[in-house]
Amino acid sequence: MEDLFKRSKVRLGDSVVIETKNATHVGILIPRYEYADVNHLVLKLKNGYNIGINLEKIKSIKKIPEKLDPSYMSDTDHKYKDSLSDRDSVQDSPDSPDPQLPHLSLLSTGGTISSKIDYRTGGVMAALTAKELNDSIPELKKIANIDPEVVLSEYSENIKPEHWTLIARKIADKILSGKYDGIIVSHGTDTMHYTSAALSFTLQNLPVPIVLVGAQRSSDRPSSDASLNLIGACTFAARSRFSGVFVAMHHSISDDVIACHIGTRVRKNHTSRRDAFHSIDVYPFSLIKKDKIEMSKQYADLKFQVRDKNLEKMIVRPSFSDKVSLLKFYPGFDCKMIDYCVESGHKAIILEGTGLGHINKECFSQIKNAVDKGIFVFMTSQCIWGRTSLTVYDTGRDLLNIGVIPLSNTTSETALVKAMWCLGNFEEKDVIKTMITNIANEYTNRIIAD
Amino acid sequence: MEDLFKRSKVRLGDSVVIETKNATHVGILIPRYEYADVNHLVLKLKNGYNIGINLEKIKSIKKIPEKLDPSYMSDTDHKYKDSLSDRDSVQDSPDSPDPQLPHLSLLSTGGTISSKIDYRTGGVMAALTAKELNDSIPELKKIANIDPEVVLSEYSENIKPEHWTLIARKIADKILSGKYDGIIVSHGTDTMHYTSAALSFTLQNLPVPIVLVGAQRSSDRPSSDASLNLIGACTFAARSRFSGVFVAMHHSISDDVIACHIGTRVRKNHTSRRDAFHSIDVYPFSLIKKDKIEMSKQYADLKFQVRDKNLEKMIVRPSFSDKVSLLKFYPGFDCKMIDYCVESGHKAIILEGTGLGHINKECFSQIKNAVDKGIFVFMTSQCIWGRTSLTVYDTGRDLLNIGVIPLSNTTSETALVKAMWCLGNFEEKDVIKTMITNIANEYTNRIIAD
Repeated sequence: MEDLFKRSKVRLGDSVVIETKNATHVGILIPRYEYADVNHLVLKLKNGYNIGINLEKIKSIKKIPEKLDPSYMSDTDHKYKDSLSDRDSVQDSPDSPDPQLPHLSLLSTGGTISSKIDYRTGGVMAALTAKELNDSIPELKKIANIDPEVVLSEYSENIKPEHWTLIARKIADKILSGKYDGIIVSHGTDTMHYTSAALSFTLQNLPVPIVLVGAQRSSDRPSSDASLNLIGACTFAARSRFSGVFVAMHHSISDDVIACHIGTRVRKNHTSRRDAFHSIDVYPFSLIKKDKIEMSKQYADLKFQVRDKNLEKMIVRPSFSDKVSLLKFYPGFDCKMIDYCVESGHKAIILEGTGLGHINKECFSQIKNAVDKGIFVFMTSQCIWGRTSLTVYDTGRDLLNIGVIPLSNTTSETALVKAMWCLGNFEEKDVIKTMITNIANEYTNRIIAD
Repeated sequence: MEDLFKRSKVRLGDSVVIETKNATHVGILIPRYEYADVNHLVLKLKNGYNIGINLEKIKSIKKIPEKLDPSYMSDTDHKYKDSLSDRDSVQDSPDSPDPQLPHLSLLSTGGTISSKIDYRTGGVMAALTAKELNDSIPELKKIANIDPEVVLSEYSENIKPEHWTLIARKIADKILSGKYDGIIVSHGTDTMHYTSAALSFTLQNLPVPIVLVGAQRSSDRPSSDASLNLIGACTFAARSRFSGVFVAMHHSISDDVIACHIGTRVRKNHTSRRDAFHSIDVYPFSLIKKDKIEMSKQYADLKFQVRDKNLEKMIVRPSFSDKVSLLKFYPGFDCKMIDYCVESGHKAIILEGTGLGHINKECFSQIKNAVDKGIFVFMTSQCIWGRTSLTVYDTGRDLLNIGVIPLSNTTSETALVKAMWCLGNFEEKDVIKTMITNIANEYTNRIIAD
């Protein structure tokens, strides 16, 4: 491959047109990973997909002048071929930072977005560093100057509340340095919505936006969503008027729009699709279409603040209690599971009830026992969408009388995280008051049709 | 009210046009409930809504000739007023059964669809019997001869596996009587999808369709979805070519289409909306638009059989074990919860993992201990949509090695019910084989975009 590159006067990172026997491909040459097939090069297309091209099938590789914006080129647009002959006149773009661009901190915590396929075992391993990721997506250089740093290297199913504390402290450090216009946190998708909720409560009155970003397919796979998600996240973090905690992921399965979700209102709703993340009960906060940010009109109903240079307003409360449990109720549920939580010293229980927030009446004595022992019992709904209401049916009113506290349309996942955070940072007398207060849009007044 | 009815020569069940000072309403007079305001009558509009009309505001009530199909009338269509003067020529429709129509059994189990608002407390109580319900929706008489029977009167959060057994046996009795072309089960919506899954496994090779139906708003509320859902359920049960277990509920928030979902593939995804029930990973099996049934083209990919007069093929396996638990995993999950299930004598655990089916590696020793003790450990995903896959990441492969059994795109709720059913009806040596076999479309090959 080195020979081919040398002959064609191209190098990694170049925008190129590759002619094969059957097709013309336009894209950016990106690194091949350690165990990848040596007979292929990897081209990142403008739609975000990476494709592997067999070296033997390549007729020519020609560099595209940087002055032509590749975003206006179709992947199979033959009209461009004529204008590519004067490649000698092209200047390489400098690799040095552009002081005119915003500065972002990219904190890597692990997950698919920082992983590659291990060709020995066929599986995906966390391996790519934040720097490698930044280098492999040259568009990022046009959006911001990005300082990558590895904070953790964990699949997100292994992320625990103590990691939220670590990430929150690292973000606070970066913000307090005054150097950054936004923070990107790359994260495994499995529990990214739990972490985004955790950061929404730990870091309040933020001067700059924090955007979590992940990938459903690893960076070196043809169908990877990693680069487009990261470009969208960086675009929002660098240019949005608003601060707060967000999650940026594909808005649909086509590769053109990234949705930026509110950190407390987002959920992973599909095991594998690139548009797995959905905003619950609201529209996504904004959509990122190429370099444009479209705000949801609904944001006016929500609690948000604009960017603010004043670092002193930022509140950092990074502690979490691990004495909180979430119990999903179902027919045949073993009510003694509630006793187990009481006996294990749990301080709060999130009951994920059915419908408006209901539990079999046979569990009422266990719930009452928990409440009587000073344990906070909160109610959410396993329906995912909509809000709990304990005043409509007998069951709900009985639960209210016992002392169960409904959390309206706070999602179960956000409710769990918030209870862990409340118990980690406040005196017990303030826990209920804090739980029923809207801090970071975990409650919304209007529910928007989905 | 009796006076007004007498003067106007109308009675309950009549299709009428009511003129008030400001509007013209067309609909069917339905009974007012015991505690309802005595100064109002209740009119069921053709869109399924019930409205209350203040008696003092009524200028006239005129009966509509039965020969005019009310489904062609707009709620505010003034053109009809002229043709209503010859009411004396109208024949009352007979209340006696029409032997030409299909016969349905309507089994009432409780829930909102069989409830009414208690005007003393402001809440909703289970109170309406199946017969009252049938009488209050006169359209049903045109679809089928319906025999109502009260089997249970429980809010569905109180339904337990032993109730599934009771309902299944009652259905089997009705089918074996040979009298019915279909069975309707009215049910609370909270756990209706658990019950539909339970019936899908307990009753196989069904000669006729079984349709569960509920309501998100009680029958006597203006916005009740009860009547339209029941009309849709009866239309499907009376006329569908297919047998099997289904759930019929609103397809959207407009009152014109009822979706008929596959019993194992449906989930309540909203606390209050009338279109709360969604098919997961597939389109609804059919849509009922007025008296037309539109089949999903996708049904060809699924496992279904047509109606069959042969009752002997029906399999009834109505037992359930209560020694199964479902644990939703989350960051900070107390791994000892798994030990609790082992020590409590549970025979199977459904782990509702993150993403493709992942659990924090810190729980691996507890999971291994459970498997070593002969407990079946199955994996589903809390994402709701999509399928588990334990071969993509290290975490998944480790879980497979421990002996965790992934259940692909069986929903968590259906997986729980199926495990309870397997342990209730099969020897332990046959449990895994049965769990990974597609019995009632709990597995689908293709996942359809939602």
